[in-house]
Amino acid sequence: MQNAEARFNKNSLLLTLRRYSLAVSDMEQTILLPSLLRDVPADEVWDSDVAEESCGDLYGNYLMLKTIRNTVESGLVTLDDHKAKTNKTLETLVDTDPEALFHFHLRGLFSVMSDLTKKSRSVTEKYMDIIRVTN
Amino acid sequence: MQNAEARFNKNSLLLTLRRYSLAVSDMEQTILLPSLLRDVPADEVWDSDVAEESCGDLYGNYLMLKTIRNTVESGLVTLDDHKAKTNKTLETLVDTDPEALFHFHLRGLFSVMSDLTKKSRSVTEKYMDIIRVTN
Repeated sequence: MQNAEARFNKNSLLLTLRRYSLAVSDMEQTILLPSLLRDVPADEVWDSDVAEESCGDLYGNYLMLKTIRNTVESGLVTLDDHKAKTNKTLETLVDTDPEALFHFHLRGLFSVMSDLTKKSRSVTEKYMDIIRVTN
Repeated sequence: MQNAEARFNKNSLLLTLRRYSLAVSDMEQTILLPSLLRDVPADEVWDSDVAEESCGDLYGNYLMLKTIRNTVESGLVTLDDHKAKTNKTLETLVDTDPEALFHFHLRGLFSVMSDLTKKSRSVTEKYMDIIRVTN
């Protein structure tokens, strides 16, 4: 398992997760007064109107990004959780071919983690802008 | 990053990927004559008729499980690959809420890796049965 471990440490999924974790840590360390993000619209952070509605202000985004980071770092999905919720819709989509399902979720996880990393950096930058304006 | 690294090493996603890698290694070490799996129907390995049709015989499953293991271990999805194929259908399904998308793919990856681990063990057992019958 030593070689396998070395390979896992180099692999892109782990790097993507680490990159996200680092972006959220930077965000936390930079944003000393998270309450300044309250009621600041998140329009420049989120691409979609739908996401904007569901996430509300930048403070909401800040909290969400931290929650996801905690999930990524400390426990991810518990066994009960992921067993309970099978993705029936998805299974139909990919014709229950396990190889297609594997690639589908792997690509999806990469994609969403990359987006969330960008969003963390964006919240950090937005906070810096707010600080500059108020000082 | 030291703490984060320690946490990543403990997390369930990594364990799930490692467990799969180990199951495929066991399969490889046990199956000294993979050609014995040719034309053996995979009915006891795959739950679904659809999957059975697409994967063919046990030899096909054996090759597929090894290919996925290589992807898991050595490179995963390349940046170009996952950028090129965005999951538009899925984005509609989860209303482009990044938190929901994250949990969706994380659960999905857990689920499919657990299934593939079982399938690897099943191919190994089936091979053992074949060996027992022929000797």
